[in-house]
Amino acid sequence: MSTFVLVHGAWHDGSAWEPTIKHLEAKGHRAFAPTIAGHGKGVNRNVNHAQCTQSVVNYIVDKDLTDIVLLGHSFGGTIIAKVAEAIGDRIRRLIFFNAFVLNDGESVKDTFSPNFHGLFDKLARESDDRTVMLPFEIWREVFINDADLELAKSSYAQLSSQPYQPLIDKLDLKQFYVLTIPKSYLYCTEDNGGWHPRMSSRLGLFRLVQMPGSHEVMFSNPVSLAEKIIVAGRD
Amino acid sequence: MSTFVLVHGAWHDGSAWEPTIKHLEAKGHRAFAPTIAGHGKGVNRNVNHAQCTQSVVNYIVDKDLTDIVLLGHSFGGTIIAKVAEAIGDRIRRLIFFNAFVLNDGESVKDTFSPNFHGLFDKLARESDDRTVMLPFEIWREVFINDADLELAKSSYAQLSSQPYQPLIDKLDLKQFYVLTIPKSYLYCTEDNGGWHPRMSSRLGLFRLVQMPGSHEVMFSNPVSLAEKIIVAGRD
Amino acid sequence: MSTFVLVHGAWHDGSAWEPTIKHLEAKGHRAFAPTIAGHGKGVNRNVNHAQCTQSVVNYIVDKDLTDIVLLGHSFGGTIIAKVAEAIGDRIRRLIFFNAFVLNDGESVKDTFSPNFHGLFDKLARESDDRTVMLPFEIWREVFINDADLELAKSSYAQLSSQPYQPLIDKLDLKQFYVLTIPKSYLYCTEDNGGWHPRMSSRLGLFRLVQMPGSHEVMFSNPVSLAEKIIVAGRD
Repeated sequence: MSTFVLVHGAWHDGSAWEPTIKHLEAKGHRAFAPTIAGHGKGVNRNVNHAQCTQSVVNYIVDKDLTDIVLLGHSFGGTIIAKVAEAIGDRIRRLIFFNAFVLNDGESVKDTFSPNFHGLFDKLARESDDRTVMLPFEIWREVFINDADLELAKSSYAQLSSQPYQPLIDKLDLKQFYVLTIPKSYLYCTEDNGGWHPRMSSRLGLFRLVQMPGSHEVMFSNPVSLAEKIIVAGRD
Repeated sequence: MSTFVLVHGAWHDGSAWEPTIKHLEAKGHRAFAPTIAGHGKGVNRNVNHAQCTQSVVNYIVDKDLTDIVLLGHSFGGTIIAKVAEAIGDRIRRLIFFNAFVLNDGESVKDTFSPNFHGLFDKLARESDDRTVMLPFEIWREVFINDADLELAKSSYAQLSSQPYQPLIDKLDLKQFYVLTIPKSYLYCTEDNGGWHPRMSSRLGLFRLVQMPGSHEVMFSNPVSLAEKIIVAGRD
Repeated sequence: MSTFVLVHGAWHDGSAWEPTIKHLEAKGHRAFAPTIAGHGKGVNRNVNHAQCTQSVVNYIVDKDLTDIVLLGHSFGGTIIAKVAEAIGDRIRRLIFFNAFVLNDGESVKDTFSPNFHGLFDKLARESDDRTVMLPFEIWREVFINDADLELAKSSYAQLSSQPYQPLIDKLDLKQFYVLTIPKSYLYCTEDNGGWHPRMSSRLGLFRLVQMPGSHEVMFSNPVSLAEKIIVAGRD
């Protein structure tokens, strides 16, 4: 049985994984879902990428978790790459789940299409605290396209405004790219974000696991997601 | 419950949707399937694209349908884009179903691969009435690859020769590209036509819905198609 | 009912098809699985591509098989193209199953990514008999990513070292590209080898059939594979 640590993406916090964790535990696994520093409701959002990473490192070290399967969703992919650099000896496998795999020296923002680039810059400038809230229309149509409107709304209510700095910070990933930790890419095929093979191929040797569904199957299909996480994370 | 208007593609007529409509109605929806002017058996095929569009506009206005979900299959995608320009206030959402999404100023023919380009030109020249009939071999292997031979033959018998002019007419789509009507792209993944993301990405913000199957699931899998049309068309 | 001849890929031998053949036979079909010359355990591995092809031609002629559906998996795709040139009159349809479709004058090695190119050259140089054994890590992560570790190991034990010369030989395929034998491409969508549409599109007119799964579904999912082979091979 495995120990999973699930790292959420932008706008999410650890609570997004609750249904998935329930199903992982029902299959006999342990699973943890830290909330990244500066993320979640009612917290100080003045964080950079290094502080985000450190908060997940601290969580794993404080709980003394070892032999873990570390999964990162979307923006969380950039976190687990840096966590792996810091405490790789605690990690059995990395799973990138419809996640960014940044090139050395790149930021998340560097990978955006020009459309999103401009939109997010504008939203950050207009905010009080240099954060970006995802417009509901984009959430409903692009992120959670496989849900009904009720679930699209209830899951949107769980989101919170995303600190912009971690999306702008350019990451030194030289060490990540020489790590020999095994890697999987879990890809939901109705997510129109162009993740695979654009991002996945940067991993070199990796295990591909696919399932139907949107970017947000932790809300729309946590049962299948848990099953695919187990497949992506085994041995 | 929704009101669907289903616009067929080249060689088809409205009768192709009968099994799909039955399943949509069984789920409590209303669904209509006009035959585009110049299409179907035993009609005058001397039509251009504007006349095709006008016939669908007339159908919707004559029946006074409002708040509709307007779906276009294949060539039908070019029709619904122009219908949306004409009577956008009657349309709640557009669904492009393995459909052409033309750029402003483009014709369907402009998007063909050189192979099809030459073949269709030749067939149109050789015909009595400047139409193109799809060779059975292409229908069976490329269009309805998920059916058995019997269904491939019986569905082929429902087809009729396609007027060539609507495929050649270059469309002014400037107005379409500023419409704010929500859009979905429904994509059957065993259709080898390169529709997604080549065509879908032209829509800008859109909802992606996928299902297995060929270009012709209205014949080979109308039950699943109806379910996916409902998902693509909700809210 | 059809007569299938299933041609294995590199490292495999005919025994890999046993579970698939069982399911094909249960559906009333006949199926044969020759081992290509120089392949399988305990044989002389000093063969070139022409000898590989000749061994399959001989198998089919010796058994006097006619009206066959000839399937090639992976490297086996290069064999069936040449077999079709030699005895096309015995073949009703070709199925390329996550298989190489080489351009005229190309070798398998010519299609490798630079990574694999260097690795295989090195392994061949280091071997006693100019063969290449696939490292287990690549087998487990890239080839049979949909299996559990136990099956990954037991199937790996069935493999044997691949003669390198047949992967290097450049093939004259001018005759293949004018054959009118119908063709299908069967594509497992979790095989991260970039087979479709890169290889499939070279076939011109072909029938696409897809299923979920890895490059090695003959081990991980022979039931579904048999069903899809029947679909790919019918009429």
